[in-house]
Amino acid sequence: MAQNIYDKPEFFAGYSKLRRSVHGLDGAPEWPAIRALLPDFKGKRIVDLGCGFGWFSRWAKQHGAAHILGLDLSQNMIARAKADSSDPDIDYVIADLNRLDLSEASFDFAYSSLAFHYIQDFDRLVRTVHRSLIPGSYFVFSIEHPIYMAPTRPGWSVDSDGRKTWPVSRYSVEGPRRTDWLAKDVLKYHRTIGTTLNTLIGAGFTIRHVQEWSPADDQVAANPGLADELERPMMLLVAAQC
Amino acid sequence: MAQNIYDKPEFFAGYSKLRRSVHGLDGAPEWPAIRALLPDFKGKRIVDLGCGFGWFSRWAKQHGAAHILGLDLSQNMIARAKADSSDPDIDYVIADLNRLDLSEASFDFAYSSLAFHYIQDFDRLVRTVHRSLIPGSYFVFSIEHPIYMAPTRPGWSVDSDGRKTWPVSRYSVEGPRRTDWLAKDVLKYHRTIGTTLNTLIGAGFTIRHVQEWSPADDQVAANPGLADELERPMMLLVAAQC
Repeated sequence: MAQNIYDKPEFFAGYSKLRRSVHGLDGAPEWPAIRALLPDFKGKRIVDLGCGFGWFSRWAKQHGAAHILGLDLSQNMIARAKADSSDPDIDYVIADLNRLDLSEASFDFAYSSLAFHYIQDFDRLVRTVHRSLIPGSYFVFSIEHPIYMAPTRPGWSVDSDGRKTWPVSRYSVEGPRRTDWLAKDVLKYHRTIGTTLNTLIGAGFTIRHVQEWSPADDQVAANPGLADELERPMMLLVAAQC
Repeated sequence: MAQNIYDKPEFFAGYSKLRRSVHGLDGAPEWPAIRALLPDFKGKRIVDLGCGFGWFSRWAKQHGAAHILGLDLSQNMIARAKADSSDPDIDYVIADLNRLDLSEASFDFAYSSLAFHYIQDFDRLVRTVHRSLIPGSYFVFSIEHPIYMAPTRPGWSVDSDGRKTWPVSRYSVEGPRRTDWLAKDVLKYHRTIGTTLNTLIGAGFTIRHVQEWSPADDQVAANPGLADELERPMMLLVAAQC
């Protein structure tokens, strides 16, 4: 059973106040980059792995998807997603991605936003997703970047020139990382980019695009604090195809 | 014209004393990992991009390759490579990889060891290599890892626990990096992993394997100093197919 951090009251309360929780997709700075990786959704059957409040599931429906299955471990998230939409073409279901089972060849697109760093057995999950997609389907996801996740002490340092640096350590030591973010002792699983991509390739996916997200110039102009994200990437975006 | 650092006397003298220069492939800790990515060489026509002293070119010949073209910008390196081998199936040629021209569909395998971080226009080079390979051919290379190359001050820090950390900065700011290594002001070009892989994909390659090299347990046991390499990767290995 995965750690169900999103159902801890203090975590859920903190998460609910994030820009991406209040403003949805437009509150997530990586959304324009993800959107550029998405195929046409018209008539597609979509699985949204770690759907949270359902922002993406609803966006997919608005953009022509025929049916969306939104999955999340958090009862709080699924309850809120269901409360926010009664669309009969979107099913929100509580599910543990570590034990996920999906019908074979039942989807045309798979999506996940910032959920896979909570997954211990990524290989099992990726094989399950591959089997569930029809040939040619795309799988687009974001995950915390391993540079962000690897360190023993993930936080900025300031060097003698006053420049912010990110103290990478244990990059090649894959496995659990426990950090304090919105709540104490949040459990994540660090994997190198190599492992993430080789796992996809091993399951039968072809890598189409790999993006270590950084803000565009207009985003930094509108929100100067985002400039820090140029120093080290926080997110990795991947597009793969069956 | 690329900076021809290898023909600076102090750089060449220093480089010639490195383990990998004295002991060849077996002096390079990443060699076992690279070797595991290589296809069967029997009868193959191979291009070795940045061949240096020719260690790999000679190894390829010993392992069945029909012909090897070894290319390097450094007159010193090519002179030494020619002096070390008079094999008629290996041609060593002075060439600037930034302006490389290769005949279409004339090779069955392309290789490069730690040369591409000196290349400014990686896209042009990759398209040239792709055109020179027959369909199905592999392209295997190593390059300095962008985590290693990105920082303003590339060198270890020690945190309050006494752990070595690598102060990443400017990761998403691609372009020139000037460092002192064996000589002053060595010019390299930093690119993210995403850019490296997307350039290959854009040129028509399929990504087969991505490895952020770290030492195996037996290597650390034999050479405890290699344990530092677990903290941050110094090299990126890629296998791609036409």
